[in-house]
Amino acid sequence: MTGLGKTAPAADQSPFLAVLDGEVRSAPPPLWMMRQAGRYLPEYREVRAKAGDFLTLCYTPELAAEVTLQPIRRFAFDAAIIFSDILVVPHALGVGLRFETGEGPRLDPVTDAAGVAALPDTLDAARTAPVYEALARTKAALPRATALIGFCGAPWTVATYMVAGRGTDDQAPARLLALRDPDLFQALIDHLVEVSITHLLGQIDAGADAVQIFDTWAGVLDPLSFERWCLDPLARIAAGIWAKKPDARIIAFPKGASAEALARIAALGVNAVGLDWTADRQSLRKLGEKTALQGNLDPLRLIAGGPQLDEEILRIRSDLDGVRHIFNLGHGIKPETPIAHVERLVERVRAPL
Amino acid sequence: MTGLGKTAPAADQSPFLAVLDGEVRSAPPPLWMMRQAGRYLPEYREVRAKAGDFLTLCYTPELAAEVTLQPIRRFAFDAAIIFSDILVVPHALGVGLRFETGEGPRLDPVTDAAGVAALPDTLDAARTAPVYEALARTKAALPRATALIGFCGAPWTVATYMVAGRGTDDQAPARLLALRDPDLFQALIDHLVEVSITHLLGQIDAGADAVQIFDTWAGVLDPLSFERWCLDPLARIAAGIWAKKPDARIIAFPKGASAEALARIAALGVNAVGLDWTADRQSLRKLGEKTALQGNLDPLRLIAGGPQLDEEILRIRSDLDGVRHIFNLGHGIKPETPIAHVERLVERVRAPL
Repeated sequence: MTGLGKTAPAADQSPFLAVLDGEVRSAPPPLWMMRQAGRYLPEYREVRAKAGDFLTLCYTPELAAEVTLQPIRRFAFDAAIIFSDILVVPHALGVGLRFETGEGPRLDPVTDAAGVAALPDTLDAARTAPVYEALARTKAALPRATALIGFCGAPWTVATYMVAGRGTDDQAPARLLALRDPDLFQALIDHLVEVSITHLLGQIDAGADAVQIFDTWAGVLDPLSFERWCLDPLARIAAGIWAKKPDARIIAFPKGASAEALARIAALGVNAVGLDWTADRQSLRKLGEKTALQGNLDPLRLIAGGPQLDEEILRIRSDLDGVRHIFNLGHGIKPETPIAHVERLVERVRAPL
Repeated sequence: MTGLGKTAPAADQSPFLAVLDGEVRSAPPPLWMMRQAGRYLPEYREVRAKAGDFLTLCYTPELAAEVTLQPIRRFAFDAAIIFSDILVVPHALGVGLRFETGEGPRLDPVTDAAGVAALPDTLDAARTAPVYEALARTKAALPRATALIGFCGAPWTVATYMVAGRGTDDQAPARLLALRDPDLFQALIDHLVEVSITHLLGQIDAGADAVQIFDTWAGVLDPLSFERWCLDPLARIAAGIWAKKPDARIIAFPKGASAEALARIAALGVNAVGLDWTADRQSLRKLGEKTALQGNLDPLRLIAGGPQLDEEILRIRSDLDGVRHIFNLGHGIKPETPIAHVERLVERVRAPL
C-alpha cells in the first residue's frame, strides 16, 4: 500500500487497456461504470458517513482508495476510476468550494478579470497530493488485470461551475460570459487547460493507466463555440500530456456532443470517446475504427431493470460487436439504482452474445 | 373581430408561408421569434400585471390576442404565434395546473393506470374555446402579410410535465415511467396524440395559418425511444391533421434532436423543422431541399448583443442562403433580453447580405 513501487501489479493484461490500445474485444467487452464508487453501494455510504462530508472523503487517501476499490471487489469491473471530483481543480486553484447536502456544489464564482487574474499558476499540493496518494494506494491494491483511471473535468465544464458558482440547468452564466467577454473567458479556459495537463500528468505519475476528461456540458454549445471552448482545449490538453507521456491513454467524454463533434474529437487521436445514451451507435460504428467507443447504457434503464435493461444491453453489444467497445453507462450511475440490477448488467455484459 | 369571416385578411402574400409552401426567400428570410410575446416587452408586462396571473392571460381572449399582436406592432415580424401554453392541453384534460411565481408550472402528476384512465376523451371547451377566440381576434387584426401560428406541445414533452408534475432537469420521471411501464406510457402518449390533433385542428379552424409542435425534450431520449415517443406520435399527429386538412402547414421543433432525427422528421413531410442553436447548419443545408429550416440564433447571443450577435446573424443567413429558411431563435427569447438587441436583430436579418 505504498504507491508505485516495483511490486505494483502491471496492468498489461487488462482487456480495458487492450481496447484503448487498439484491440477489438467484444466477446465480452471490458466493463466499468461511471460513478461506480457511489451512493448506490451500502459500503460506500458507510465510508461516506465516517468521512463526514464529501470533500473530506475526496481528500483522505485511504478512504478515497477504499471506495474506489469497493465496486471492483463487488463486481470485478475491468477498470477502477479514482474517487475524486472535477471541482478539485478549481478548489486547488484557491476557489472556495463546499458541498451542501441535497444542494450540490457551491463555489465562490469567478466572473471578472480580477477573479481570473487571481487564479494561481499552480495547483495547491494540499489538494492534489491526496488524489495522487489515493491513486497510488488503489493501484497497489488492484488486481493485475484491473486498470486504474484518473480524470478531470474539461475546461468548459469546469468553467460553467466556476462562473455560475453552482450547477445550473442551462449553463447560461458561462455561456453568456463567453459571449460578452470572449477574451476573459479564453483566459479562464487557457488557465484550466494548463492546470488540467498538470493534474492529469500527476495522476498518471501516481499510477493511472488512462485518464478520462469529462465534458459534461459539451452539448449546450453551438458548433463554433464547441470548437473554441471544447475541442481546442481538449486538443491542447492531449498535446500537453503526450508531449510528456507519448503513450498516455486519453478518453474524452463530451456528453451531448453531436456525431460530427464526436468525429472531430476522435480525429485528435484520443484512445476512446465516451458516448451518452442518446448516441446513434450504428452510425457511429465507423468511428470505432479510429478510436474506442465507451458507453452507452442509459442509467435510468439500470434503475428500471427488467426487459428494458436486458434488451438494451443486448442491442448495445450487438451494435458495437466487432469494433473497439468498452461497455459503460451513458452517464453516472444514480444513487437509487438497485444493486441487483448492476449484478444483472455484469452478468449480461459478460454472457456469450 | 369575429373570427374567420370573409373580411379576414388573406395571408397568401406572407413570405413566411411562402417558405413553408416550398419557396426559397433568403434575401431576406422571413423572421419571427419563439416566445416573442413575452416578458422582455414592457407592454407585455403591463398586460400580464393587469391579468393578474399567467393562466388568466392565456384564457382571456382579448388579452391573449393583445399580447400576441404587441411584437408584431413593434417589430413587424413575419408571423405571430398565439399567446398560449403547451400545458393548456393537460389542463383541458382536467389535470390540475397552476403557475407559481418564479417556480414554473405545477401539475397534479399523472403517474399510474388510474390517472391515465381518468383522462377524458375530449378537451374541456372552457379551456380551448378562449384559445380559438384569441386566434380569431388576432387573425382579424393582423396585417395581410403576417401569418398566424397555432401550437401545441408534442406528446412526449407534455408527458414529461404530466408525469413529474413540474419541469425537471433531466425528465427522469417520465423517462423512468416509459421504461418501467411502456404500455401505460404508450396509453398516455396515445391519448395526447388524439387530443393534440383535435387542438391543432381547432386552432387551424380558428385562423392559424400554420401550427408548430414543440418537442422541447426530444433530445434526452435514446434513438429507439425517440422513435417511439417522439417520431411516431408526431407522424400520427401530422397524419391526423392532414386527413382533415390536406393543406395544413406543420412545423416540428424537436429541440436537441440529432441530425439523423431531424432528417427522419423532415421525411414525414412536415413543412419546416425547427433547429436549436447547437445544430450544424452547413451539414443540414441539404435537409432544406425537403423542408424549410427554422432557426437558430442562440437566445443568449440576443442578450449579449455586440459583435457576437451581429456575426452569428450573418453566419446563419450565409449558411442557409439559397435554401428554405425562416429566421428564428434556437429557443424562446429570455425575459432579460434588451429590446435594442431585438431591434438590431430585425435590422440585420432584413439588411442585404
